Amino acid sequence: MKLNKDTKILIVGLGVIGGGYAAALTDSGYKVKCITKELSDIQYAYEHGIIDYGTTEVDPALIAEAELIVFALYPTIFIDWIKKYQHLFTSGCIITDVTGVKSSVVYEVQGILRDDVEFISAHPMAGRERSGVEYSDPKVFRGANYIVTPTEKNSEEAIELCCELGRQLGFAKISRLSPEEHDKMIAFLSQLTHCIAVVLMNANTSEGLEKYTGDSFRDLTRIAKINDRMWSELFMMNKNALLCEMDSFIDEFIKFRSMIENGDVDAMRERMRASSERRTLFDKPRK
Amino acid sequence: MKLNKDTKILIVGLGVIGGGYAAALTDSGYKVKCITKELSDIQYAYEHGIIDYGTTEVDPALIAEAELIVFALYPTIFIDWIKKYQHLFTSGCIITDVTGVKSSVVYEVQGILRDDVEFISAHPMAGRERSGVEYSDPKVFRGANYIVTPTEKNSEEAIELCCELGRQLGFAKISRLSPEEHDKMIAFLSQLTHCIAVVLMNANTSEGLEKYTGDSFRDLTRIAKINDRMWSELFMMNKNALLCEMDSFIDEFIKFRSMIENGDVDAMRERMRASSERRTLFDKPRK
Repeated sequence: MKLNKDTKILIVGLGVIGGGYAAALTDSGYKVKCITKELSDIQYAYEHGIIDYGTTEVDPALIAEAELIVFALYPTIFIDWIKKYQHLFTSGCIITDVTGVKSSVVYEVQGILRDDVEFISAHPMAGRERSGVEYSDPKVFRGANYIVTPTEKNSEEAIELCCELGRQLGFAKISRLSPEEHDKMIAFLSQLTHCIAVVLMNANTSEGLEKYTGDSFRDLTRIAKINDRMWSELFMMNKNALLCEMDSFIDEFIKFRSMIENGDVDAMRERMRASSERRTLFDKPRK
Repeated sequence: MKLNKDTKILIVGLGVIGGGYAAALTDSGYKVKCITKELSDIQYAYEHGIIDYGTTEVDPALIAEAELIVFALYPTIFIDWIKKYQHLFTSGCIITDVTGVKSSVVYEVQGILRDDVEFISAHPMAGRERSGVEYSDPKVFRGANYIVTPTEKNSEEAIELCCELGRQLGFAKISRLSPEEHDKMIAFLSQLTHCIAVVLMNANTSEGLEKYTGDSFRDLTRIAKINDRMWSELFMMNKNALLCEMDSFIDEFIKFRSMIENGDVDAMRERMRASSERRTLFDKPRK
């Protein structure tokens, strides 16, 4: 199967990411149908012209006609959904997801999935610090990274379809990683950063601090506004990799603290120069 | 003395902040003169029309005619400058600064300063992660906080002049804090955040991570590009307050790590909800 404007695409879960997918695909000329829990989200999607059709029902006919299904659900809900409704998929259907952890999702879903349906997993590395379709915005995908995490169960055809979906959504860089590589990377780049933001936000609750804040504190805590249900699931599903990155961070933090305590200015400046130099690698590419 | 367009203003140190002050004041119709170390910075300032006159010489006549002098130097260089050149100030002159730590600067300078010159200290809470006049931009002051840190040695007249300078520079919120209150606040809001960014940047140096990064990591490490000389001075001059905030952060981080390790999802979600709620206090006011 190749992606084209007639491909029957179904999105399950119209939240901030599912809504962004719907809007991006609709903008590009696809007709997107969706199933989601709240009627108000479907109304919002109709009013903003980001879907062709939506329902709150798990409609067998709608699922049966879908050739490509994108699951944009919390990880545990996604797995439960597959268990409960996979008999409704049409044979040859390809399903993908947007889940932020991979090993604990991909192998489980591929393990229970019917042989005539293929699951190719992907992670769009772009989000918002708010949840809900009303915060969805396809612009966040532009310039961002999209990671496909195939396993030996995946066909080249499905992998390519998933990559093409990423390109159609507007992602700038499409990569492939194994689920394990993905999870190690995400533990550092995304999960540790969210832990730090939450911890920093709670570390000093003196009154009135907001009156004096500069942008550095605002930047470090932007993601301290966090979807507690989703992120606690993601942390639990990638616990070992996350704990490992948290420990490396604590070690480095304690070393840096000692340099300050001991007045070791040379060592401190060396660490600062290393961080300045390394940070340039992460600058966003100019469009 | 009241600030008006004829006030003779001298800026000493034309870096990213001194240059921003010069540009903002020139934009508002003031004639700004400056003394700085590098001729190329003066040339840049002339070319961009942000100063009326500049020199690399510590010119006695220029200093003698100044009614308001802004020192935008590294803290240790500022203190040395006062020791060496304060005999050149005219009687009644008011001096201010932009230094990021207060207790260890304000009392020392006020202690050695001539009786007929007044030092009123201030901290513009806006910077760039780069140094040098070519990165100066008066727009960063708009919407930002400006903190005046008077002591019992200061007159209401000088405090008001300093506040008016903040308003003329475009700052949205002008506050007063004691040097000690300022330093405690800045240890958390600014110095701890810079420590975290540097430590995070150095905590995992695996190759190729930049290919997969999302904006959360970029936001948390924006300030990991850091002026190592200035910040190591600032950390050293506020060591006790900073170590105290670092310890609170480590305590909170280790608690959060235990929640993850123990799978205590309820506690984790409670911390996330607390951080989400508290973060809304720090949202930037809409202009």
